[in-house]
Parts: sequence; C-alpha cells; structure tokens
Amino acid sequence: MVSFTDNDIKAVQTIRTLALDTVNKANSGHPGAPMGMAPAAHVLFSKFFKANPSNSKWANRDRFVLSNGHACALQYVLLHLLGYKVTLDDLKSFRQLDSITPGHPELGVTDGIEVTTGPLGQGFANAVGLAIAQAHLGATFNKDGFPIFDNHTYMFTGDGCLMEGVSAEAASLAGHLKLGNLIAIYDDNKISIDGDTNIAFTEDVAKRFESYDWQVIVVENGDSDLAAIHDAIAKAQAETTKPTIIQLRTTIGFGSKDQGTHGVHGNPLKKDDTIEIKKKFGFNPEEFFAVPNETKEIYAGIAKKGAETEAAWEKLFGDYATKYPEEAADIKRRIDGKLPDGWEKALPTFTPADPAVASRKLSETLLAKLSVAIPELVSGSADLTPSNLTRWGNAVDFQPPSSGLGDYSGRYIRYGVREHGMGAIMNGLAAYGPNLVIPAAGTFLNFVSYAAGAVRLAALSHQRVIWVATHDSIGLGEDGPTHQPIETVAHFRALPNCNVWRPADGNETSGAYHSALTSTRTPSILALTRQNLPQLEGSSIENAIKGAYVLRDVKDAALTFIATGSEVSLAVETADLLAKDGINARIVSAPCLEIFAQQSREYQLQVLPDGHPVISIEAYTSFGWGKLAHESISLDTFGASAPAAAVYKKFGLTSDVISTKAKKVIEFYKSIQVVSPLNKAL
Amino acid sequence: MVSFTDNDIKAVQTIRTLALDTVNKANSGHPGAPMGMAPAAHVLFSKFFKANPSNSKWANRDRFVLSNGHACALQYVLLHLLGYKVTLDDLKSFRQLDSITPGHPELGVTDGIEVTTGPLGQGFANAVGLAIAQAHLGATFNKDGFPIFDNHTYMFTGDGCLMEGVSAEAASLAGHLKLGNLIAIYDDNKISIDGDTNIAFTEDVAKRFESYDWQVIVVENGDSDLAAIHDAIAKAQAETTKPTIIQLRTTIGFGSKDQGTHGVHGNPLKKDDTIEIKKKFGFNPEEFFAVPNETKEIYAGIAKKGAETEAAWEKLFGDYATKYPEEAADIKRRIDGKLPDGWEKALPTFTPADPAVASRKLSETLLAKLSVAIPELVSGSADLTPSNLTRWGNAVDFQPPSSGLGDYSGRYIRYGVREHGMGAIMNGLAAYGPNLVIPAAGTFLNFVSYAAGAVRLAALSHQRVIWVATHDSIGLGEDGPTHQPIETVAHFRALPNCNVWRPADGNETSGAYHSALTSTRTPSILALTRQNLPQLEGSSIENAIKGAYVLRDVKDAALTFIATGSEVSLAVETADLLAKDGINARIVSAPCLEIFAQQSREYQLQVLPDGHPVISIEAYTSFGWGKLAHESISLDTFGASAPAAAVYKKFGLTSDVISTKAKKVIEFYKSIQVVSPLNKAL
Repeated sequence: MVSFTDNDIKAVQTIRTLALDTVNKANSGHPGAPMGMAPAAHVLFSKFFKANPSNSKWANRDRFVLSNGHACALQYVLLHLLGYKVTLDDLKSFRQLDSITPGHPELGVTDGIEVTTGPLGQGFANAVGLAIAQAHLGATFNKDGFPIFDNHTYMFTGDGCLMEGVSAEAASLAGHLKLGNLIAIYDDNKISIDGDTNIAFTEDVAKRFESYDWQVIVVENGDSDLAAIHDAIAKAQAETTKPTIIQLRTTIGFGSKDQGTHGVHGNPLKKDDTIEIKKKFGFNPEEFFAVPNETKEIYAGIAKKGAETEAAWEKLFGDYATKYPEEAADIKRRIDGKLPDGWEKALPTFTPADPAVASRKLSETLLAKLSVAIPELVSGSADLTPSNLTRWGNAVDFQPPSSGLGDYSGRYIRYGVREHGMGAIMNGLAAYGPNLVIPAAGTFLNFVSYAAGAVRLAALSHQRVIWVATHDSIGLGEDGPTHQPIETVAHFRALPNCNVWRPADGNETSGAYHSALTSTRTPSILALTRQNLPQLEGSSIENAIKGAYVLRDVKDAALTFIATGSEVSLAVETADLLAKDGINARIVSAPCLEIFAQQSREYQLQVLPDGHPVISIEAYTSFGWGKLAHESISLDTFGASAPAAAVYKKFGLTSDVISTKAKKVIEFYKSIQVVSPLNKAL
Repeated sequence: MVSFTDNDIKAVQTIRTLALDTVNKANSGHPGAPMGMAPAAHVLFSKFFKANPSNSKWANRDRFVLSNGHACALQYVLLHLLGYKVTLDDLKSFRQLDSITPGHPELGVTDGIEVTTGPLGQGFANAVGLAIAQAHLGATFNKDGFPIFDNHTYMFTGDGCLMEGVSAEAASLAGHLKLGNLIAIYDDNKISIDGDTNIAFTEDVAKRFESYDWQVIVVENGDSDLAAIHDAIAKAQAETTKPTIIQLRTTIGFGSKDQGTHGVHGNPLKKDDTIEIKKKFGFNPEEFFAVPNETKEIYAGIAKKGAETEAAWEKLFGDYATKYPEEAADIKRRIDGKLPDGWEKALPTFTPADPAVASRKLSETLLAKLSVAIPELVSGSADLTPSNLTRWGNAVDFQPPSSGLGDYSGRYIRYGVREHGMGAIMNGLAAYGPNLVIPAAGTFLNFVSYAAGAVRLAALSHQRVIWVATHDSIGLGEDGPTHQPIETVAHFRALPNCNVWRPADGNETSGAYHSALTSTRTPSILALTRQNLPQLEGSSIENAIKGAYVLRDVKDAALTFIATGSEVSLAVETADLLAKDGINARIVSAPCLEIFAQQSREYQLQVLPDGHPVISIEAYTSFGWGKLAHESISLDTFGASAPAAAVYKKFGLTSDVISTKAKKVIEFYKSIQVVSPLNKAL
C-alpha cells in the first residue's frame, strides 16, 4: 500500500508556492488552478507517471496534457522539479518575451510539453488522439512479452474544457473506442471566469461521462487527500476497456484568503495574501522560488526512476529487435521521423490523354497507394466516407476488438459527425511522435471551418496534419450555399503556417500529397472537387510543388490568368477562346499560394512578370488575391443550390463571360504602366 | 383521447410519397429521413402545432426547426400541404436554380422556414435560442390572463446533429435554463452517412440528455404508432420546467426495399423501388406528386384552425393593448422591426481631450446606455464577462426563476464556455423576430473562430447578430499566441455579408454600434481592444459609419496610411514622426472595410486617390489588404506571449520601424506610375 509522508505534503506546498511566485513575478497569469491541482500533479508524477525527464522524446513515455492550459504555471513548475530543461530562471521569465514559459503551453517551445493548449477543450481532444495513437501502435507492434508501446495518456481538464463542444465530441468517441489507456483528472472546482459554475454549468458531468461509457471516479477531497487521489488513479489504470475521468473536487486557489472564488482564477494574488499563504504552508514569505531539499530529493528520485524505466525499455526494444528485426526497423524509422524509402513511387502521374477525374477520386487512388507505401498513414472521415473517398479498399477500421467491426491495428478512424473533435484528435495523433502516426481525415471543405480552433493549433504547433477537404466549391451543386465554401480557403490562407492546396488535376493532386506528407512542420488542407477535372497539358508533380507555375506560356502575352483547382481548366478554355480573337493569354496554375510565397523572388517574378495584367480566376471570394493579381474573377456572395454547371453559369464563371471581362482588363491596362503585383518595396 | 384514422395514415403516406417524388424529380437529395419522420411530422402539425400558414410571421406562432436540414424535402412538403407559399411546382423545382426549395432550408428564401439548417447541429442550437426568446418575451410582457407570448419551439434532429459539439453545448445550456417550451424529436434511425451509427456513436443519448436535466421520452415505434407519438408530444408539453427530447425510433427510408440502411440516406431511390413503395402505400405508381383529397381536407382543416388561433390571439392582443397600452406599443414596435425613437442619443461622442480608453471599455459604456434605450438588446458572454465587459451594471441574468440567480425577463445570458453554441443560439434569438430580441454577446476575438459555423449561417441568413469580440490582437499581451488573432479578421472579412468592425477610438466604437444595430440584415463582429486607445482628432460617428474616411489630410501627400483599430493611433504617431523629416503622410481610418466597399466609387477614390502609395498598418496578416493598399505593415506569423508593448516592438509595429519602411516605399514608387488600388477595370 502506498503511503504519503510529510515530505509529500511539503512537495505539494512547494508546487503551490512556486506557481504563486511564478505568476506574481510575471504580474500576470492564473494562480488558482495550479494551487488547486498541485496535489493531483504531485501524486500523478511521483507515483505513476512513466517518463524520463532527461529524454523527453522517449517514444513510450506517458503523455501528459494540461487541457486547462491557463494553469500552465503548474506544468512549468512540475517540469522544473522533474528535471526537464526548465530552470528557475525560466519560471522567473514566465510570460516574458522569447521565454520558454509562455502564457499558455506551446508544443515545440518548452521541453516536455506534448501539445499546445489554452484554447479550451483542445487538450482534451488531443489526449484522445494521443491515446488512440498508443492503442494503434501497441496493436500494431507489441508482441507477446514485448509491450513496446504501452504508455498511458493523462490529462488535467477543468470546467471550461468540459463546457466546450470539442471535448464532448472527443469524449463520446473515446468512450465508443473503449480507450482504457486514457485517464482524465477533472479539476471540479466549480469556478469559471464568470463566477460559480452554477450560473451556466449545472449538468451532471459524471452521468454524462457514464453515458459515453467512461469509468467515473469521484474524489471528494482533492485538496489534501493524496491517498484518495492515488487510489483513484490506480483504479483508473486497472480499467483497461474504458477511459476514466476522475472527478476531483478541489478548491481553486487553495490557501488564499479568496480560495474557492473566481477572484483567484486569472489574476496574481495580492502581496499580503501571498505572504499569508506562504506562512500557512510553512514557507518563508521573504523567500521566492524556494525549493526545499526534501522536495528536490523526491523529484530527483522520480527522475532517476524515469531514466531507469527508459533504460529498461531500451533493453526490451533491443531484444525485440533481435526477435522482430523488421518491425523494429520500422519502429526505428518512424521514431526517427523518416518516411519509407521510395514512398514517392506511390504517387501516380498523368498525361492529357488520361480521362477527367474528380480530385476527390484522385485522392482516393492516392490514399490506396500511399496506405501501402506509408504504414503510419492513418485515415478517417467525419461521417462522410463515401463522399470524401478517404478509405482504401482493404482498410481495417480502428475499432475496439470487442466491437467486431475492426481492431486497434486498423488505420481508418470513423470519427462520426465531429469535425472539431476530429481536428483536435488528429493534432493529438500527430503529437504522439513524428512518423509514429501521420493523420489524414476528411470532411467537406466548408466544414473544416467547424474545426477552425484545431486547425489553428496544428499550424501554431507545427504539426503535420492532413485535411482531405472534398466538395470544395459551388461545383458541389445541389447541396447549395449552406455547403458551398466561399471564404474558407481565404480563411486558411490567412492563417500562418498552413498550406492550402487546390490541385487542378491528377499531377497536381499527387503534388499536393507529396507536399502534405513532406511538410513535417505544417498542416495541409487539400481542397478537392466533387466534379471531374481534365488532365492538363503542362502540369507535373515537380511544377505543382513549387506552389505556382506557368502552365501555358505564350509569346507577346496580353495577360496572365492565375487560377486554382477546378478553375484552371476554365482558364485554359478561356485562353483558347481568346486565342481565336488573336489575344495571347498566359496561364499560371497556383495550387498552393503559401508554397509559392516561399519560392525565390526571381522565380516568383518569372511566374508573374511585369508588363501585362494578371487576372485571378477562383470560384471563391476575391479576398486575398490582391497580392497576386491586378483583377479578380471571383464569387463574392454565397453560392446557390442547383446542378453545378447552372451554378457556375449563374455567377458568370464561364469562358465566354470571362473572356469578355479579360478584354476589358486588357483595354484598361493599356494606358497604365503595369507592374507585377509581386514587385513590392517591402 | 385523440384518435387517428385511416385518413391520417393516408396523409402520412402522402407525405412520404411527395418527399420521394420531390427527391426523384431533382435526381438529388435525401429521401430517407423524410420517409422516416413523416409520421412525427403529421402528428405534430395536425394535432399540436400552433401557426397560421397564411401569415407565417405571426409573432406568437410555434416555431419549427429542422435541424437535420438535409431532410428538407419533408419540410417543403409539409409547408405545401399546410398552405404556406410553397406550390407543387416549387416541389418540382427542388434543388434547381433560383427555386424557393433549395437543397437545405434557407431563412428568407422559403415562406415558413424559420432558420437556415443543413450544417449539422446548428438548428438544434437555433431552437434553443428560439426557446430562450419566447421565455424572455413571455416573462417580459405576459400578464395575468394575457399569455401574449406562449409558443413552443419544436425541433427535429438526427444522429448527425447529436454528434456535433455545437448541439451538446446548446443542450447543456438549455437544461440549465429549464426551457420547458422546447421539444426536440430525435430521429433515432441508427443510420448516418458512413452506415450504422454503431461504428462511431454508441453513447447512451437518453442518459446524456438526462445528465443535462432534460426530460427524455422514448417512442419505440415511430414508423406507425401515431398515438404513441401524440402522447409523447403531449407529455413533453406538460413538462414546463425541462426541455424534452423524444427519442423516436424510426426506420430510415421507411417503405423502401433498402429501408433501414444508409443506401436510402442521401440519394434518390431507384425507379423500381419507388414503384413498389407507391404500390405498398396504395398510390398509383404512374402518378407523381399526388395529394389525395382526404389529405387535402385534413390540411385545409389545420390551416383553418391556425387562422382562427391567430385571430383569437389578435383579439387577445387588442384587449391587452387596452389594458397595457405601453407594453402593447412596445411589442408592436418590436414586431414591426423598428428601433425606439431617439435611440441614437445613447451613443456617446468624444473629443481628443477625452482620456484614452480601451475599446472594450467603451463598449461597456455603450452597452449600459443602449440597454436603457433599446429594451430588446440581450447581451451575454461565453464565460468572459469580466474581460468582455458585456454586462451592464444593473443587468439581470436570464436564468430560471427557481435558480435564485435571475429570471426569464433578464437580459444577460451566461452562455458558459460555449462559443459555438452561443453563436448558434444568438442566430435563434435573432430569428424569433426582427426586434423582438437583438442578441449581442462576447468572447475573445480569437475564439469567434470556434463559432465559425454559426457566424457563417448568420451571414447567409441575413441576421442581425452582434459579436463583442474583445482582446482583438497581440495587444492582449501575455496570454500569448494561442489567444492572439492573426487570421481571424481576414476570415470574417472574406465571409460574404459580414461586417467586421475594428474601431480606433470612442467615436468609432459608437459608430460601430450604430452600424451593428441598424444593419438589420447583416451580422457584425466588433473587434475591441484590451489596451487603451487615445481619442483621435478627426474621428466622428458620421465618418466611422462610412467604413473608411480621411482622418488626417495633408497637402502634397507622399503617402497614405490606412489603418484600423489600435493601429490608427500608431499611424498618427508615425505620420508625426515623418513630418519631422518633411514627409507628408495622409491617414485613413478604416474601421469597417465591408461598409467602405459599399460607398460610391467616387467617395472611395477620394479616400484612396491615385498618385501616391497606400500603406496598410494592421497587427494581423496582410492577407486581403492588396485590395486597398500597395504595401502592408502587418504580422504574418503568430504572435508572442509578453507584455503588449514588447510584443508590438518584437514585430516591428512601432513608429520608428514603420517610418523607415515608409521612406523605402516612397522611394520605390517614385519611378512608378501610382494608381489607386481601387482603380480597377472590373
């Protein structure tokens, strides 16, 4: 039986006072939750958490997610005590410029941070993704006596996270998937920013999670009953066929004179209150960032044990490699973040003689080939599989084996109609490790917007996540304006570090996948058509992966059309029409503006030179095209419900209308010195 | 006791076959859910629903929301049978160009459609908003013996809607608010696009809704047990302190040989199947769009009763007006969609002598004044009240009276941390009637993105919804890049029919509210600062509501700065700095680009004339500025966690850095013929 000593209590108080000092020094931040959750953090990390602070990238480490990311002072303090690369000076630079301790945890900035959190609910769903990744890798690689992947995913979550729909979506799926490796500790402190949760959040959280088929454990005294916390986590570990949520009743800002109120949630505590708290906890109020030796010793012990745990795993893995050399080599490659040699051969190429095909269908062919070439590719859809065409023929569903519908080695996730949850789960899958899982999943392009919060964090966190976003325009036809994206592509083009692809044909679709898979630090959204697209003269994978290129060059060009996706063939048609009138139009295909922006200035100006006007053609808003085009043929209103051709016609997106406009443009710019839109001072 | 006859059964089969013919004629659409839900629709509309088809705008009508909007063939058929302005020809034009029967229901397009649905989960949350509106207006205006507002809100919802987080958020809040006037009928057909719901959605829905404190009623046979459906709705009506969900087990595509499979979900049925179904239901398979006389009679009777119901209400309202003339006049004004006379006097004006104030604080002052001037204004926040400053001093919370925390006449909604739900609920509030409720609510600008799905539908549906989006830039400081919007404003500027305001000072903030309140067919997002802003020389409400205007004119301008919000005072500082070097810079303040785009071309070219370069300054992505500026000072990466001034400095958003860049721009454009970015051919 486990026992906790006075030193454990001192460690808890150390965590509390360190978090307090961290927030006070910054004069900004959230002291309440760290002080309330210090006991749970101490119990978890001292008794259960399996990780090696000196190698935060060990593949089989337990994962910890602070879904209530505003409580990050707690996490930074723990990382410091455990011996990750977080010093006391780092704690003292909390929320300061270029420190490694920003206002909310950011993946890639701080050693030991697994995912970026703060936007509420995201971390919860990331944790579900991390748990799926473990279950999948375990089922794929573990052998009798060789539990290579058997880590747990632990998550702290607060009331705020649990009010968000994204966590509800992920929780329902996690229950369905029977993720016994997932343990959430719910900081049930009954306080959010507006005050007592009784003003907006009176649902029975325990019952809700039971309805999702989670195990629910209640700990009545999370403030000081370390043994109860311990027993709850132990019980959670023992339940292997259900995720667990431990409803931990805590007092926010424990120790403060304002404890239990929203006064301690999001602002530093007053000086006199801080003094009294330190006295109460047996600390010298004149001393700051104090760590008693006893606490140092406990945490040094944890770190040592962690290093031993990893060493034992390394030995196990060595034996595994002897017995299962092929699997071990694959694991090693994946941990090293390398794609399999020759994977690119799976990318098909096309000639203009090949038939017209919808790019969603091209994507289906690609996924089938890539699924063989890249075993870490895990696909899925938010209940639009037959529309997104994201499932290869012989795919196995990722399902609990007891369901009879698949098993955990399956590489196709049925996310349900849960776009936001899907996005955040994909971020969690990607966070498990560079090539351990590469997540791709589908929905209609228009509904990627439901997941905007998750896409944003993939971009901020530099994660390789692939959105297969079909039905990418008014070309979807009859479903109408509720389903036809107008602003969606502009939205994600405006997002930093997000590649938005809109391939025009087969070669460009192959290029899009090439880019998405090799952009290891950037999410990609592949906007794909419902309708067929002809194979273009002049396209190639090599051209596509430059982001934009001259598809058709002409002598004495009167203008350049720059177009994307389904509108490139429209540009070709229009250019052909203009040629009959003796007007020479160049055509630039621009499947990915973000990647084009990364090319040399010289190349960019070759593609869009001075001297003649550039007209963009895209069946979306013109917003954003001013950077690349003098004039835009676009759709700046919502679409319409009708067969696709009728909708294109209604909005003047036909070669005859565009050629007339093109003539007007040529005329207008005759009297003006035409400078390339890319020719800029700044 | 109610009884159903053979004619009722015939009516149900008529609904089914009409829906079938509608989808078949379009050769596109969803036959399954309409055929499954026909019995519920018939029972609801024939026995309960209180509305007058010849006046679809009657204020106290029951509201019906088809949250599973893809089933709209059902709704169009019902509207036709009930006598709304939907003809058989309209059914025959389903999903065709410019018809009034688009692929998903659209508010404003079809008589009798209350909200736009199709994007899953939205309608569910809209219905919660409609129910809140009724509860609020009832509590505000009803008197003993005068139930002026006492309608119900009914909603059909499917598995897809219930998987979405937005519905989960709204459901939790609806339970908290004890909305006894809300009745959901859940089409529990166990089928979604990917197939059987057992592949992704195995939660216990009934238990989940119980956890939200809803009444749950199960009807085992929704395919034919009309009496059970009737009893369930009656029981739902009897429960006045809880919303109700009726879990109705149905067979998707009832009658088809493929009934109960996803084969009947989203595609027209085959010809032979259609023939067999019609035979089975006693219809002539050679006849299309057939409505038996018995069915016509039933529905004529319903319509007649509806007209009588409204007439009785009109009489009641007449008596009410005699007894309570003031209240009646207010109701009448609001139904007529007019703001109170003289409301504009509540908008404060400022002079440069007034102190610097954060625009969120200016908004707080405005809301306090407007709350008095405009009684239909209902504010709220997604748990950020002390940050958004959306609550006026003496506001009463909208809460169930039994909570002791407010009552239903309250005009401040505690939405909880549920941004997407909040957005969709606001759309429902606005949909109740033009000036019956004007919803406004707050979150951080960055988290409006969580609600993108709802904002989009407000725009598409032409709804006046006001987002109070504070902490609008890196100026929020320490919370860091997870909370600092970069792409957000570009996203919503790219969205058709959405006004994005970024006021620079007090006068512009008043202008923003003026515009938001008078833009009756457009949602507005007010991006407001955390940090203080000086009151500018040259600003005024009149200027602001042009969208952009010359804040400072100069002779022989070398350049124009166009800036928004907090960056306008930065432009002023920079211009002052340049003046010291003898460089004359004009300044354009552009609080709302969408409204500027609606001004005359002449005015626009006055603001941004030919002849010198225009530089935009905005602490967001440059994406989209190419339309208005030659060059952009912007922030095309994510922000940073640090005090605001340090973050601005890090990204070169200071007057010294900008003035250096401005000189470079002036030099560059000396050799180029400078044409206004607004001077275009198209």
